[in-house]
Parts: sequence; C-alpha cells; structure tokens
Amino acid sequence: MNTKLLYLTLIFVLYSGGISIGQSYPEYTIKADNCLPGKSYPRIYDDGRVIFQIHAPEANAVLADIVGKKFPMQKDEDGLWSVTTDPIVEGFHYYAFNIDGVRVSDPSTYTYFGTGAALSGIDIPAPDMKFYSAQNVPHGEVRARYYYSRIRKVTRRCFVYTPPGYDQDVNKRYPVLYLQHGWAEDETGWSNQGKMNFIMDNLLAEGKIEPMLVVMDNGDISGLPFNVVNWDSAQSITSTGKNKVEFQDLIIQEVIPMIDSNYRTMSDREHRAMAGLSWGGLQTFEIVFNNMDKFAYLGAFSGAIRLRDNVDITDLYGGLLKHPDEIDEKLKLIWMGTGSEEGNWSQSFRDKLTELGVKNIIFYESKNTAHEWLSWRRCLREFTQRLFK
Amino acid sequence: MNTKLLYLTLIFVLYSGGISIGQSYPEYTIKADNCLPGKSYPRIYDDGRVIFQIHAPEANAVLADIVGKKFPMQKDEDGLWSVTTDPIVEGFHYYAFNIDGVRVSDPSTYTYFGTGAALSGIDIPAPDMKFYSAQNVPHGEVRARYYYSRIRKVTRRCFVYTPPGYDQDVNKRYPVLYLQHGWAEDETGWSNQGKMNFIMDNLLAEGKIEPMLVVMDNGDISGLPFNVVNWDSAQSITSTGKNKVEFQDLIIQEVIPMIDSNYRTMSDREHRAMAGLSWGGLQTFEIVFNNMDKFAYLGAFSGAIRLRDNVDITDLYGGLLKHPDEIDEKLKLIWMGTGSEEGNWSQSFRDKLTELGVKNIIFYESKNTAHEWLSWRRCLREFTQRLFK
Repeated sequence: MNTKLLYLTLIFVLYSGGISIGQSYPEYTIKADNCLPGKSYPRIYDDGRVIFQIHAPEANAVLADIVGKKFPMQKDEDGLWSVTTDPIVEGFHYYAFNIDGVRVSDPSTYTYFGTGAALSGIDIPAPDMKFYSAQNVPHGEVRARYYYSRIRKVTRRCFVYTPPGYDQDVNKRYPVLYLQHGWAEDETGWSNQGKMNFIMDNLLAEGKIEPMLVVMDNGDISGLPFNVVNWDSAQSITSTGKNKVEFQDLIIQEVIPMIDSNYRTMSDREHRAMAGLSWGGLQTFEIVFNNMDKFAYLGAFSGAIRLRDNVDITDLYGGLLKHPDEIDEKLKLIWMGTGSEEGNWSQSFRDKLTELGVKNIIFYESKNTAHEWLSWRRCLREFTQRLFK
Repeated sequence: MNTKLLYLTLIFVLYSGGISIGQSYPEYTIKADNCLPGKSYPRIYDDGRVIFQIHAPEANAVLADIVGKKFPMQKDEDGLWSVTTDPIVEGFHYYAFNIDGVRVSDPSTYTYFGTGAALSGIDIPAPDMKFYSAQNVPHGEVRARYYYSRIRKVTRRCFVYTPPGYDQDVNKRYPVLYLQHGWAEDETGWSNQGKMNFIMDNLLAEGKIEPMLVVMDNGDISGLPFNVVNWDSAQSITSTGKNKVEFQDLIIQEVIPMIDSNYRTMSDREHRAMAGLSWGGLQTFEIVFNNMDKFAYLGAFSGAIRLRDNVDITDLYGGLLKHPDEIDEKLKLIWMGTGSEEGNWSQSFRDKLTELGVKNIIFYESKNTAHEWLSWRRCLREFTQRLFK
C-alpha cells in the first residue's frame, strides 16, 4: 500500500465506520460485548431484544438472521438498515445478515469459527453471566502451543489453559482435562465462544475446583465436508468412522505424550479427564471408552449421540458395555449435561447406559438453554467441580 | 437451537459450503494458506494472480477489492461469481468483496482485525517465505495473558511469546521486546498477520537471535474514532496526543511491572526493547524517547512519523534531541525499517535525526514491499538479530 492508498484506507474506515460522536442510544440497551472497537451496535435491550444495524445504501433487501428467525430490516435516508428483533433467548448465538440474498457477517462485531465459517455471534446476557465474565481475580493463561504431527505431517496448534500460579510454583504438577469443541468448530471455540478461561479463573478464585490444565485441540471435524459424511451413521455410535479413528490416534499417540512432556502434568489415568460438546461428546465417548487405561473421567456436553435401532451398543467399544462393572470400577465419573431446550439424545443415551448396568453417571440439565454455548459453559462449570477430588 | 434447527444448520452448511469432492483446480495454482477448513478458494497462481470466488446467486454486481484495485467478477449459471486478478504483489493484503455496493468479507477465509474491522486477508507467497512459515523446529508459545488495569478499570489482554524451553529451564531469565501493531489493528496483529512466533522460532533454530520474550499489547489505536483525531497533527511528532500519553502510562506503569513480576525477565533497561509498526512506530519513539531509563533499544517499522514544517523536533520529548550524545550513549540502537514501495517518511525522519547528530541508527529497506505485513515481518527478522547481544 503506498502513501496515497494508506490515506484512502484511513478515509474508508472513517466513512464506513458509522462512528458518530455524542450519539445517544435507546434507553435500557447495552452494547454487545463483542462489538469491534469504536462500534456501538448491535445493542441489547434488557428484555433480550436486539437492535441490529448495517450500512448498505445500495442494497434492496436486508434481513437479520438469528436463532432460526429472519427479521427484515428497514433502511433510513442515509442507507443505514436497522431492526429491533423479538426477545432473543439468553446465551451465545451465531447470526448473519442477508443482503440481497447473500449471507454475510456483521462488520461491527468480532467473528467466531462456527458451522465451518467465520460467523458473527452475540451473547445475550444470562442471569448467571458473572460466572463466565472477566472478574478481577487471578487469571490463568491460554497458550497457543504449536507441535509437529508425524501422523498428519503438518504443524498443528492446540490451546493449553494453565491456571494462575503455574509459572511460579515450579514443582507443582497438575491434572489435565482434554476439552473438545463441536462439529464444524475448532480449537478456538472454547476460549472465544466458551469463555472457558474466565470460567476456570472464577471457579478457582472461589476455591470450587482443583487447579488443572485444560488442553483444547482441533477435533478435525471443522473442515469435514458434510456431504462425504453419512450423518445418520456417524451419529450412531460406531468405531469405524475414519475421521474419528484418526483423531483418536492423534490424541492418544501424539497430543497426550506431547502435553505430558512439555507441561508439569500428573500423567497417570487418575489425573486425566476428557470432555467434549456435541460431536466432541461423541468423540469423547469413543476415545475414553476405547482407552480406559488413559482416562478416569468422562464428560459429554450435549453429546451428539443417537443409537440407531439396528445398532447393538454392546458390540461397540470393543464390547466394553458387556462389562458395565468394569466401567464403574475404572471411571470415577461419567458426567452428561444438556440444555433443557434441545433434543433428548443425552437423556436417551444416559438411559441406555443405566439400563445396561452402568451406575456412576451424573446428569445435568441447563435451564432455558438450547444446543448452544451457554449450555456448555454451564456444563463446564458443573463438570469441573467434580474432577480430580 | 433445537434438534430441528441443528439439522437445518447442518444442511445450510452443506449447501452453502460450495464443497465438491473430486473437483479439479486450475494448474499452477495453490490454495491460499488461510482458507477455512474445507474451502479451496481463493487460489493463487505462481505469478501472483488470484482467483476469487463467492456464491451469490441473487446479486447483481460483485467486485473483488484488493491492493486498491477493484476486479469485477463474473457469475456462472449456479450463481458462483469468480474472477482472476492481475498479478498481486507478494505479501499480506487485506481484501473484501463488494456485493451490490456492500463491502463484505470473504466467507471462505479466516478474518483478521485490521483497519478497525474483521477483514479477509491473503498472503501472496514471497521468495523468502520460509522465514515466516511454520517449520519443524522447536516452537515457542503465544500466551494470552489477562490482567486488570487500574488505569482503565477493565480486564485487558496482551500476548506474550515465550521461546522454546522457557518452561524447562526455570532459572533462566530473558530480555523483553515490547512489540506494537499499527493503527486500527490490535494485540492479535503480530501473531495472526505478522506470524511473529514462526519468525522467532525459525531465527532461534538457526541461532541467529537471543532467546527473548515478546509482549504484544493493545496500543489503543484500534478503536480510535478517526474523526476525533487530527491525523495531520497526530502524524507530527507531538507529545500531547491524549491517546498516546495514556498508552504510555499503561505500558510504563502497568504492563512492564506486570510482565516483570509474572515472567522471568531481565528487568534492567539494557534488556528491554520496544518496537512498533506504522502508528506503533510513532508510539515507540514517544515511549522510548520519553522513558530513556527504561529502554536500550528502539525499533520503528514504517514508523508513522512526519514532521510538520512548523514543528521543531528539539522541542519535543522533553528536549531530548537537543542532546543527541545522550541518545547515542543510552540507546544501543535506533533501528528503522521501511518497505521500498511506500512513502519516504522513515528516510526523512532518519535524515532529521542524523542531521541533529544522532549516530547510532541502522536503516533497512525491504525490497519490493509496501506499507504491509511482509515489510514488517522482514523488519522483525532483521531487528531482532541486533538485540541483546
């Protein structure tokens, strides 16, 4: 960019920013917490209604698309489109604008990697939002850790949460939670959408959890071309899905040894847990049930598991479920959580395990939440309080 | 999201993804390295031409907007718009699509925070790209560090690069480089656009630099409403800009003490450097020249400094430049770099300092690059090799 272009860019930003100083805002609204610097919209009313805005003077029709509803927007004389939605249920929701038929992100907010794309998102404050908000308490770090995968022949990235004090108390060793995102998300999900670091910081400050490391890798389901996966069969519990087996190899053969050799971990199975949300829950059942020598705790948050009628679960996982006593003996906990407003697959799977004789299951329901991140933030809060004690 | 909505979302992703298996691609093209998982465009020819694509069946006119040029796109019968650009100069370039007059990000690539917005970007490979690429060498970590600012009364985030071995060699202490982004960027810039961690990893593996910590904070110029800043006066060297002074206070009073108390630093001035790109270079001159007791090295990468005719530089920085000997005595290095294809403000400022009698200046020109991140990656590579030796 030459000097002139730099200036043109600056001027573009000035005029496209929609910034105006001294502007007043509708009463009883707050700015969404993920607005880009200098932006003031979207704004959220105290009853959950959202005001969206986008500047698109040449567009013919603009919609705001959130929680499965489309809200037509109105244009003013300056080409600024806006709409006030119905009340949106509390929690984290991806959204998009539809401009003359094209789905685009909101240029006023940070984007998130979800449903395989860089999407806008909005966090409708929940009554209990303090538990996932930044408080003035000691903070852990979220570390980007790069490692070369011999299996994949590529440099990969995972994130590692280290609790406050990790660098200071250099003789202390820590248990480890492996924590997976959902389908078409990636290793950034738990920090960005899930606010996992603030949840952990706050629980630690209250003395409610043991200090632990949390490892968030890429479950390799972010780029899974959906049309080459048989969702119906993948949703059933099978150990034959190529992708799943590969991720299992990666976690067991590469990630766990890499973490144990680079961090001060407790590397026995009694101090290792795995949990995941949605498809990450499916992977967690797969990986933990197939590697009972490696894990003592299992968490599934809205685990994406449904049994097809013709699948006998006792044929899966090397026949593990023919011996429910072994599960109860080895696993200190199978923890399952779900949002109250989503399907009942978690309950069904819990019932199936119980029917087979597995006893050590704890089940949690997040009130008034669906298949989204507020459910999973609450799951993380509840699950981690039962770990490594 | 209820179960039905989940399925609808999945189906949306399927149909919107534009994924097709077994598809062939134009010869002599590679996929951009920041494509989202499952995406195959944009693609880059070996001569730098880029093929952009976007699915927008209802749009009337779509342009690809990159390096200040607009390339009209053509629609096929499936509503897929595409264009092959002219050769684009090597380096990192923000770009956007313009759909019926609305500027939007490319849904096929990750976005970057630049020019105050979440923007698409593309990296046209440079002949020397190996130095900023992930190699199979020991990797440092990029740590998200959260801290409460008493000055700002808010929890802030900075990133801290720790070199390989930082956790293992627990008695070793490290020098620190404070490294700033440019105007309307933020603390993510150096990792995401700048690839600073790979640059440092590679230089360390070659034994070309000393191990050091690199701290990247938010220079508070990301959300600076441009229309409340007088660019002309801000560009001149003045110590009166409110924003700049506030950031100086933050760095000096809060960030440096926070880093020195949480990391194993060498906390004397001989082991502390500061550098910044563009506006971050302006801030670096301000902060280092006003705090000569704190820093021994200064780097300005395309530093956004121009002197107005009516400004006497010797009146600035507390009159520091009336005593050029003091600068040469205290600062081990003033390092200035620029791209060959941008304005000559760096050269002019270098000449001014030289004319005043400052001797210890090293000047570097990145060949064939403009005011963009390839220039600054190269500046980082050159500058760090002269630090702490």
